[in-house]
Amino acid sequence: MTAKPDSTHDAARRSWVASANTGATDFPIQNLPYGLFSESTGGERSIGVAIGDQVLNLRGVAEAGLLPEGCAAAARATLLDPLLALPGTELAALRERLVALLDAGAEERERLSPLLRAQNGVTMHRPTSVGNYSDFYAGIHHARAAGALLTPENPLPANYKWVPIGYHGRASSVQVSGAPVRRPLGQLPPAEVGGAPGYGPSGRLDLELEMGVVLGRGNARGEPVPVGQAAEHIAGFCLLNDWSSRDVQRWEMFPLGPFLSKSFATTVSPWVVTPEALAPFRVAAMARPEGDPAPLPYLLDAADQAAGGLDVRLSVLIRTARMRAAGEEPVVIITSNARHLYWTPAQMVTHHASNGCDLQPGDLLGTGTISGPTEAELSSLLELTVGGTRPATLPNGEVRRFLEDGDEIILRGRCERPGFAAIGFGECRGTILPAPGTAGEGARA
Amino acid sequence: MTAKPDSTHDAARRSWVASANTGATDFPIQNLPYGLFSESTGGERSIGVAIGDQVLNLRGVAEAGLLPEGCAAAARATLLDPLLALPGTELAALRERLVALLDAGAEERERLSPLLRAQNGVTMHRPTSVGNYSDFYAGIHHARAAGALLTPENPLPANYKWVPIGYHGRASSVQVSGAPVRRPLGQLPPAEVGGAPGYGPSGRLDLELEMGVVLGRGNARGEPVPVGQAAEHIAGFCLLNDWSSRDVQRWEMFPLGPFLSKSFATTVSPWVVTPEALAPFRVAAMARPEGDPAPLPYLLDAADQAAGGLDVRLSVLIRTARMRAAGEEPVVIITSNARHLYWTPAQMVTHHASNGCDLQPGDLLGTGTISGPTEAELSSLLELTVGGTRPATLPNGEVRRFLEDGDEIILRGRCERPGFAAIGFGECRGTILPAPGTAGEGARA
Repeated sequence: MTAKPDSTHDAARRSWVASANTGATDFPIQNLPYGLFSESTGGERSIGVAIGDQVLNLRGVAEAGLLPEGCAAAARATLLDPLLALPGTELAALRERLVALLDAGAEERERLSPLLRAQNGVTMHRPTSVGNYSDFYAGIHHARAAGALLTPENPLPANYKWVPIGYHGRASSVQVSGAPVRRPLGQLPPAEVGGAPGYGPSGRLDLELEMGVVLGRGNARGEPVPVGQAAEHIAGFCLLNDWSSRDVQRWEMFPLGPFLSKSFATTVSPWVVTPEALAPFRVAAMARPEGDPAPLPYLLDAADQAAGGLDVRLSVLIRTARMRAAGEEPVVIITSNARHLYWTPAQMVTHHASNGCDLQPGDLLGTGTISGPTEAELSSLLELTVGGTRPATLPNGEVRRFLEDGDEIILRGRCERPGFAAIGFGECRGTILPAPGTAGEGARA
Repeated sequence: MTAKPDSTHDAARRSWVASANTGATDFPIQNLPYGLFSESTGGERSIGVAIGDQVLNLRGVAEAGLLPEGCAAAARATLLDPLLALPGTELAALRERLVALLDAGAEERERLSPLLRAQNGVTMHRPTSVGNYSDFYAGIHHARAAGALLTPENPLPANYKWVPIGYHGRASSVQVSGAPVRRPLGQLPPAEVGGAPGYGPSGRLDLELEMGVVLGRGNARGEPVPVGQAAEHIAGFCLLNDWSSRDVQRWEMFPLGPFLSKSFATTVSPWVVTPEALAPFRVAAMARPEGDPAPLPYLLDAADQAAGGLDVRLSVLIRTARMRAAGEEPVVIITSNARHLYWTPAQMVTHHASNGCDLQPGDLLGTGTISGPTEAELSSLLELTVGGTRPATLPNGEVRRFLEDGDEIILRGRCERPGFAAIGFGECRGTILPAPGTAGEGARA
């Protein structure tokens, strides 16, 4: 069951952490996502809770004896997985306690203040261990737009409306926001059919706007997860940039799918936004157009259909090297919304475990690129520039078909609904470095 | 550089562990592979070395002060990864020391005897942590045979002779020999084009005969591995059964590749056979037929071409439930040889890291199904029965198109060369259990 809004969502509630009350950050007291941080000088990693522009050291809160007993041990861990794997009742109790502790009227203010650090003064780490990473293809507008570039007469695969299509990604490639992205070398498609491929820096480096689904409780090998229970396995959500090399991808992917075109880097935002925090922003699963088949029974749950979707406004910003040199701020190039996903996160979990695959705490699922139906919502450069044939012009006059060295890409996500405090996901950021062995002038297709 | 035969390969050498000298096991003193075991009563895991029908507790040897200093700490670990990540010089020194300690004339016999356990009296575990698992497609005869079933007019993908094709597998699915394999549920292809898919137990459950490449030293993110140095990253080899659900695969795999058709289980043999032990059995990389392109420069190394291949005789055996009930031994249904691989393990490593992907100690690569050019060497049932159209008859009269519940599949690998002691890989074994929620009568396509 997806959580319903409760007193922890009260829009009138304020925190004694002043920056949480301004609306200027993604992290009012109604959000409280979890992350993993260390002091910027180094030292042990701790679980942190984002509040305003601060991070609260959860280990410190546990050591002060202020957390519910059921989660105190996990709150002291140096990684997030055990906390996220706790039963939903424990996590709900933890959220309630944190709301009470951070409430403007809380008596614990004096004791907790020393446990705050400025977010811009700490080092954030990959939030979970990501033992396994799988990427779905649940953005139907992306699948259709990408398919149209390859097989215009039949853009959507025949299985699309039945199968939550996915593939296994490279777990070691998953890195936290801020880590740079080195342009990959790779085999590049032959100039003519039957010719020899090239080898060198990818000339068609792309971004993909996705959300990440972070798994909490796992399932035992051989034991599928009923769709009605799938939400209990989801610990939270983040933003995810599935960096892609389109030239490498086109040449390598037949017949076994994307490999090196994806595994050079995948960036996630540092905060795991909980299902509890997102409760007010759940929406019906994407309405299936007339004539679309109903999900097969193993993927169909009334509660999930009614409230399994996510209303998250997503955006992609770019800041080029020239913009950075000129002191200019990043500009938005794409906006979309997670409600455009054809499959719900619960359906992804259930499908993934349907063959008995054991999902594990801290595993990561990507949703697939979340394009919308309009041109402004095409959520990769492949789509936006129609395979590079219609270059995009930035406000400063620079032109992009694909990413250039020095380009910085930032994903943002924000939930807004009248009567509720707006919450957000923080940033998912990465800057392109030149390929190994190149002088830094980049590569152009 | 691939190791060359040295005194540790002396075929005349005998061990004070009598069973190592009979030729009846895979583990003479010239082999000495590493594994991870615990007492069958439970307790901590230890690294073990296979010798004859025994396993030597390497932690005990380290605690007795008998190992070279450089590897003593890693030898005491409760997982194999740190040991395998040691520099090649340390691993070579460890091998030499173990050969000396187990030699028939060794003075340490009395001290070491208490550290032996019968292999059939201990529990073997997955040898490494397998943080990441990737599966290649380097068996060209398999690629051609499998392709012929789908696109008879063009069986081999256009990129095949250029790209060491691979895809990311599911790390959590990798299990050690002996663990059962539950038949997966899944979406099954529609009976007619445009129809609805089915859902239920896979009716086309298959095996795939592969070898596993176990990684030792990793590479930093963004730093490719030159092919001339790739061998330094390979810690050893094992057998690998890439269980596959052909009906699920056919329906799900376009356009992003195999997913749930593979991730329900992947079985590996428990012993990591070292490159040092395999030195006498290295052969030239597969001779490329007239007209085949040379490997691109980043994949081409003279030493690797001369001795990067593996001469390992492989076999697949089956024992059905009826055979087991009748007390019958498993029978061989497939034989092949790892020298049929189109790409060398070094080429797989270099290609995998060419985009900057960080390979990590304990990672696992599958080679892909190693079919040979003859009918007896077709190394999956898909090929052997021509997609299920030509059922195979077992000696007891049973017929198989694909695997039935209760079928036990065993992979074996053996290296033989005149003048050298034969070495082997142990067994890679798994038995099919009925799908969840079925009474055990199995599923037939």
